[in-house]
Amino acid sequence: MAVDQHALEAFKTRFSNAIRNVPDFPKPGIQFKDITTVLKNKEVFAETIDILTQMYRDLGITKVIGIESRGFIFGAALAYNLKAGLVLVRKPKKLPAETIKEEYELEYGTDVLEIHVDAIEKGEKVLIHDDLLATGGTAAATCRLIEKLGGEIVGVSFLTELGFLNGRQKLTAYDVNALVQF
Amino acid sequence: MAVDQHALEAFKTRFSNAIRNVPDFPKPGIQFKDITTVLKNKEVFAETIDILTQMYRDLGITKVIGIESRGFIFGAALAYNLKAGLVLVRKPKKLPAETIKEEYELEYGTDVLEIHVDAIEKGEKVLIHDDLLATGGTAAATCRLIEKLGGEIVGVSFLTELGFLNGRQKLTAYDVNALVQF
Repeated sequence: MAVDQHALEAFKTRFSNAIRNVPDFPKPGIQFKDITTVLKNKEVFAETIDILTQMYRDLGITKVIGIESRGFIFGAALAYNLKAGLVLVRKPKKLPAETIKEEYELEYGTDVLEIHVDAIEKGEKVLIHDDLLATGGTAAATCRLIEKLGGEIVGVSFLTELGFLNGRQKLTAYDVNALVQF
Repeated sequence: MAVDQHALEAFKTRFSNAIRNVPDFPKPGIQFKDITTVLKNKEVFAETIDILTQMYRDLGITKVIGIESRGFIFGAALAYNLKAGLVLVRKPKKLPAETIKEEYELEYGTDVLEIHVDAIEKGEKVLIHDDLLATGGTAAATCRLIEKLGGEIVGVSFLTELGFLNGRQKLTAYDVNALVQF
C-alpha cells in the first residue's frame, strides 16, 4: 500500500468525522454508522475513492466485486480508477443470467448471495469491496463465490469495521482492510 | 453536451453490443436488458463513465442522485468525476436518518422512495441517474423528492430506455437522456 501514513491518518480523521451516528437504527440499541453523510460531502467522497485507489493500484486487479448494495458505490468508482471491471454480488433473484450461490448465517436463519457464473475468468485478480465489516458472513460467502469461479482474491476492502463482532476471524486467509474501526 | 457526435454513435454501438439480452426475466415474455456484461467489460465500463462525464460536466452540478440500486453504480463514478456529492434515493426503511417520501405506481399497487431531508441544499444543481427508464414512475417520484428539497434538476440520465413504455411522458419538464433505446 503506497500511501503516505501521515496523510492516511489525517484522512481517516476526516472520514470518521464525516460519518453520521444514528442511534436506534435499524432497531433499539444499535448505533448505525451512516455513510450517506460521507457520500454527499464531495471532498471526503472523492478523497475516499482516491485513497482506496492508492491502496490497490499496481496489484494487477482486473475485477472489483461490489457487494449489494452499498458496496456498489465505492466498488464502481474504484473499478473505474483501477481500470478494472465491476462485478455485482447480489441477493437472490436479482441477477438475471446463470448464477452460483452461497449461503451465509444471519442472527436468525440464513440468507443467500449470488454471482453470475461468467463474471470472473479463472486466475483473475479480484478485489472485494463492501461498506461495512460486521460479522463477516457476507464477505466470507463472497470469497467462497470468487474462489469457486477460480478468482484470486487480492484484498477485501471495507469502509468501516465493527471490531467487537470479530468479522476478521472469518477472513483470516485474506488481506483485509477497513478505513475506520468502531 | 460537448460530445463529438461521431464518437458518441460509435460508443453507443459498443455499449449496446455489451448489453446481454436475457429472455423471460424476471417473468415469461420479458426480455431483460442485463448491464452486468457492460460492468464487467473494463473498456466499455470506463468509456460509459467517460461519456456520461463529458455530457454533464461544466453544468455546475453539485449533487448526483443514484436511484436504488443499480443507479448507485454509474451515479457514484459520475459524482466522482464531476467532483459532486452522491445522494442515494432508496426503498423504504433503508435510509437511517430523517427522510421525506414519495409514492409511485407499480403494475399492481404502489411503492415508496425516500431521501434524507438534509441530502440537498436549496438551489443546488442536481443530476439524477438510474440505469433504466421504463414507465418513468421511480424517476418522476425522485424528481418530486428533489424539488421538495429545493434542488434544481439539471438532467435525468439513464443508460437504457424502453421507449414503448413512454416513460418520458412523466418527465417532460426535464432534460432526459438515455444512451440506448430499445
